[in-house]
Amino acid sequence: MFVHETRVRVRYAETDQMGQMYYGRYAELFEVGRVEALRALGFPYRRIEERGILLPVRDLSVRYLMPVRYDDEVIIRTTIMEPLSARIRFRYELLSESGERLTEAETTLVFVDALSKRPCRAPADLIAALAPFFP
Amino acid sequence: MFVHETRVRVRYAETDQMGQMYYGRYAELFEVGRVEALRALGFPYRRIEERGILLPVRDLSVRYLMPVRYDDEVIIRTTIMEPLSARIRFRYELLSESGERLTEAETTLVFVDALSKRPCRAPADLIAALAPFFP
Amino acid sequence: MFVHETRVRVRYAETDQMGQMYYGRYAELFEVGRVEALRALGFPYRRIEERGILLPVRDLSVRYLMPVRYDDEVIIRTTIMEPLSARIRFRYELLSESGERLTEAETTLVFVDALSKRPCRAPADLIAALAPFFP
Amino acid sequence: MFVHETRVRVRYAETDQMGQMYYGRYAELFEVGRVEALRALGFPYRRIEERGILLPVRDLSVRYLMPVRYDDEVIIRTTIMEPLSARIRFRYELLSESGERLTEAETTLVFVDALSKRPCRAPADLIAALAPFFP
Repeated sequence: MFVHETRVRVRYAETDQMGQMYYGRYAELFEVGRVEALRALGFPYRRIEERGILLPVRDLSVRYLMPVRYDDEVIIRTTIMEPLSARIRFRYELLSESGERLTEAETTLVFVDALSKRPCRAPADLIAALAPFFP
Repeated sequence: MFVHETRVRVRYAETDQMGQMYYGRYAELFEVGRVEALRALGFPYRRIEERGILLPVRDLSVRYLMPVRYDDEVIIRTTIMEPLSARIRFRYELLSESGERLTEAETTLVFVDALSKRPCRAPADLIAALAPFFP
Repeated sequence: MFVHETRVRVRYAETDQMGQMYYGRYAELFEVGRVEALRALGFPYRRIEERGILLPVRDLSVRYLMPVRYDDEVIIRTTIMEPLSARIRFRYELLSESGERLTEAETTLVFVDALSKRPCRAPADLIAALAPFFP
Repeated sequence: MFVHETRVRVRYAETDQMGQMYYGRYAELFEVGRVEALRALGFPYRRIEERGILLPVRDLSVRYLMPVRYDDEVIIRTTIMEPLSARIRFRYELLSESGERLTEAETTLVFVDALSKRPCRAPADLIAALAPFFP
């Protein structure tokens, strides 16, 4: 299991007139979480794309437990729960600065060849980088 | 069961550099779907808020089956599957103009009193408006 | 001068906690305005891209006169004010249903060759389609 | 003159299928710039709102000089150019890590009383905090 944390501050743009983060904007925080997790592993997503591999999202589920509010500094805890195959699953928790759990979510992404648009295997070096976390 | 369809054209703003709709922007199409479904029932969401009731989203799940692309005119089919209680569940399907299913999703929203921020019952007249669909 | 009008309803996603449309989201309405104006001329923007021409925005200016609110149905009046050259200028007015002017804006877009990423001339047939409006 | 710099990394969500930042999303970077500038002065925007003052944007102008791309870490340089009155003007420059100027922009915001929705004077302590920069 690989766990990574990063922080992000909620923008005014991300609120709606209910006075909290719009439910669709959370997806961007999950994006930030997984991109920074991959960067910490040595695999900036930009580089993955430069190697001709895309990582579209296949499914998303979110449980909104507590409101996320403007200017909150939210901790995004991202977990890779299982070794890679043709897909990669991420789990996310948004936490307040005092440690309250605000949101839980999961996504599945698939490795796709940018030219053929067909599913492909995960890059071997990414599999290797994650291997120590799944002994 | 209450089913409603509306159409929306995909904006350039909604695409990302993968050349398809960004996975977080779909939430806006689901919003359009449920708002237009409620309007068709005689309950514009704006009016619900004016009566002091908010409808925050509690959970969201999405299965991205086929890419949604720029300038596509997408059919949003929204279904209310069960009678109302303190919550309301919507199911969504995004369909291409030729009828292909592109996306499936579900949300649960809860009725919340705007002042106390506490859960409340669905408005009686909305329950009544939906009753004929759940005989 | 070529003038075109279209309508769009403001989404909850587009509001912020000030209770009106977030200032950055107006850009999407201007996009809808110019895309529908081009479509009315017989030139869906998607087709222009398929011909290997991109139309990036070079400048934007907006005057926010009156708030645009959730669920408002806004009229987008888009005007092409001058014949095309290597650039195309659009003027936009957002109007309420009762005709009040809510917003004024302008953008300049340039024609760019998708392969070389260099400025190029406007397509001859688009110039021709606009010619009758600039006698 | 008060100048402040902050950094932000471009999200995938902010790109469009042209492979660069969507022109409407820049507004969020300007928001981040001015909010962090105000925070550096001791005035988090959230606190200003808590005191019953809103700061809606009255005008925006942007010149897109060079594309801003996915995963770029952009420097937002925000400048307050003149002492406050009933309005506050910000100038923004987006710079690449190597110092190239990518974007120039300006906004005017007005101080508005949250209850009456009418223009009001800038808070006296904010005027005082800025005074040393306009000797």
